[in-house]
Amino acid sequence: MTGLKESASLTWEWLEEIACCSQTTDPDREGVTRLCASDEHGRANDKLRQWMLAAGMQVTMDNAANLIGRYPSTAPNAKMLIFGSHQDTVPNGGKYDGILGVIAPLALVHYFNQHRVEFPYHIDVIAFSDEEGTRFQSTLLGSKAISGTFDPAMLDAVDAKGITMRQALAQFGCRPELISQDAYSPEQVLGFVELHIEQGPQLEQADLPVGVVSAITGIERHTLSIKGKAGHAGTVPMNMRQDALVGAAQVIHFFDQLCKGQDDLVGVVGKIENFPNGVNVIPQQTDITIELRSPNDASRLAAREVLLAEIDRLMTTYGLGYEHALIYEQAAVTCSQDLSSMLSQATSMAGIAPVQLFSGAGHDGLAVTHLTDIAMLFMRCKDGVSHHPDEAITQADLQSALEVLQQFCLLLKGDSRCS
Amino acid sequence: MTGLKESASLTWEWLEEIACCSQTTDPDREGVTRLCASDEHGRANDKLRQWMLAAGMQVTMDNAANLIGRYPSTAPNAKMLIFGSHQDTVPNGGKYDGILGVIAPLALVHYFNQHRVEFPYHIDVIAFSDEEGTRFQSTLLGSKAISGTFDPAMLDAVDAKGITMRQALAQFGCRPELISQDAYSPEQVLGFVELHIEQGPQLEQADLPVGVVSAITGIERHTLSIKGKAGHAGTVPMNMRQDALVGAAQVIHFFDQLCKGQDDLVGVVGKIENFPNGVNVIPQQTDITIELRSPNDASRLAAREVLLAEIDRLMTTYGLGYEHALIYEQAAVTCSQDLSSMLSQATSMAGIAPVQLFSGAGHDGLAVTHLTDIAMLFMRCKDGVSHHPDEAITQADLQSALEVLQQFCLLLKGDSRCS
Repeated sequence: MTGLKESASLTWEWLEEIACCSQTTDPDREGVTRLCASDEHGRANDKLRQWMLAAGMQVTMDNAANLIGRYPSTAPNAKMLIFGSHQDTVPNGGKYDGILGVIAPLALVHYFNQHRVEFPYHIDVIAFSDEEGTRFQSTLLGSKAISGTFDPAMLDAVDAKGITMRQALAQFGCRPELISQDAYSPEQVLGFVELHIEQGPQLEQADLPVGVVSAITGIERHTLSIKGKAGHAGTVPMNMRQDALVGAAQVIHFFDQLCKGQDDLVGVVGKIENFPNGVNVIPQQTDITIELRSPNDASRLAAREVLLAEIDRLMTTYGLGYEHALIYEQAAVTCSQDLSSMLSQATSMAGIAPVQLFSGAGHDGLAVTHLTDIAMLFMRCKDGVSHHPDEAITQADLQSALEVLQQFCLLLKGDSRCS
Repeated sequence: MTGLKESASLTWEWLEEIACCSQTTDPDREGVTRLCASDEHGRANDKLRQWMLAAGMQVTMDNAANLIGRYPSTAPNAKMLIFGSHQDTVPNGGKYDGILGVIAPLALVHYFNQHRVEFPYHIDVIAFSDEEGTRFQSTLLGSKAISGTFDPAMLDAVDAKGITMRQALAQFGCRPELISQDAYSPEQVLGFVELHIEQGPQLEQADLPVGVVSAITGIERHTLSIKGKAGHAGTVPMNMRQDALVGAAQVIHFFDQLCKGQDDLVGVVGKIENFPNGVNVIPQQTDITIELRSPNDASRLAAREVLLAEIDRLMTTYGLGYEHALIYEQAAVTCSQDLSSMLSQATSMAGIAPVQLFSGAGHDGLAVTHLTDIAMLFMRCKDGVSHHPDEAITQADLQSALEVLQQFCLLLKGDSRCS
């Protein structure tokens, strides 16, 4: 069974159409801004509902504003395979981050429905209401809700206008107090598969349309405030200076070398603030953030030890004080070996060399792993650009991704877990 | 002739009294803010005029708002020895930066007058109207005027309220169009001596009250804008990153090591701006300032060559672009060997070990060197702090400084240049 060229074309049209459900007026130039439980979210869900119905799906919205389409199985006691990703975006984001993982499976189901392909499992396609956390600064709302890990305290989070998540959801037609009842039952779910653009350049470098994700990275973030001594940049001799920025520069360099020296680490000092920041004043205080990621928690923790010891050594060497805080930590999530090898097999069957790569970004799978096995398929995006209006994909790659997902669904048909 | 303890005490009193001619109400806590041609300047000049007259001086104000007191010689065709420094301050500056070099010579002249000490030269004490450039962003107004290097275009400079220097001086009682006529004639001047707080910690470290300045530093300032490529801090592999901040860190480190490796260089990266400056975004652009100072222009120029070559090498290594500009350059000024060795001799005669040090800060001598030989005496200040309310000196050090200046005046009496 092939012939997914038309489905790729349909996916493309739908992606273009839903990109207009945005606070911006020109998605190509200004990108897409679509926040959770907003008017734009409502318009997007209206479109999705219509397309789901046309694909032979049953449609419901849960109390976390997730839109769920089900392509039902006629098998008795059928379990569910869940495809899904998030409908929301960062401010002025791209047309594909998130929504691709909703629209592509939907177009695939549309194809299955047209060709009367039946499965021994239900196929659920979910448009998660919120993953980015743009509106309420609290990520993974949608996927936490279906996984039964949603913390009701999050309902008190407020947006920029002071509207609580509770108010916004209620106004959107949900009953947020009932979110906990919307969780799937683990025993009813076969697994969760998310298609997502890579948001990085590795597939493009490897000249491949798709790749299978081995793990979703663990992340930790630190703040480091380096305390020196301000002084006249002309009159304090070099050997008497306590220059906070000179210390920060050494930390930045060391951390960069540390991450470059080990394949499973990535890290960045993304943010720096320097005081008093005058052309002729010795820096008194330099504050930096340090973010370290690894799909391997042990590697990450070991690198942290090395980094903190070196920071302490450097600060002593340069006569500087410092305050350090670990402000965020999220363990890595390993993708299901079973589902991932099935995705790799499906990739081969679609005529594509199967490769594995890890996800350096967080995804809904971080929450759904608490419910069921997860797997992810990455799709090539131009220049690795994401969270930007320049985010771009090709129809040919779309077709490849659809073919892999199609083969995956067929492979799963014969898998023992369905029975 | 000694007995300058009372003169030190008088100097101290006058310094305290004139510190109240300030926009601030509590000089000890808020520091002193006294701008050129302001009401506070007017009040300060009133006090100075009164003290000058009481010291037996003739007082005039020139058209650049410099207040000049002359302790006249009875010798026919007497030339002038000029003492002076600036009356203006940075915002919330200290009580000694500048004004010390006016008040202390004035107290010394007061002593000479009391004891009827006569000289074969006139002693002029000048309170320069503006050196810091706080009000009009254009430094050395006063000293340029007496040196004949004042550029009338500076009169168009405006303060924060849009008042031009021309208007402010006119309102202060000057005729700014006549400034060029106020320059001293080089052949009438013996030399210029400025007493100033060190604004650095070297004398404190050496446990000495005063030191003789060998040269006023040359300064150059650069901007460096490093161009990388923004990207998701999780998804771009380390070896594919073009992280502008990582490049900047290497420049900062190299420059620090360069200056630390050579006695006659000081340098600082005082200012850094990073874009987009997000905790999880690879820095796309990092802008820094680089300031390099040396009393030896050849050393400074050689260091610049080394620095620029290394910047180019580093940027290539890290795959970064950059834009560089030299935005300011001021050559070093060497103090007069004759006058400086006379100051050193005077230091010895006052019972103090003579040391030489260079000035890392700019001073009125930068302008006066175009008129006559210059010399400077630095006085110890607490912790090397300046441009801050915490600026502090002691009465004992004041007495030492007065004794050195007294010995200097006596030595000059016998010098051939007086006749």
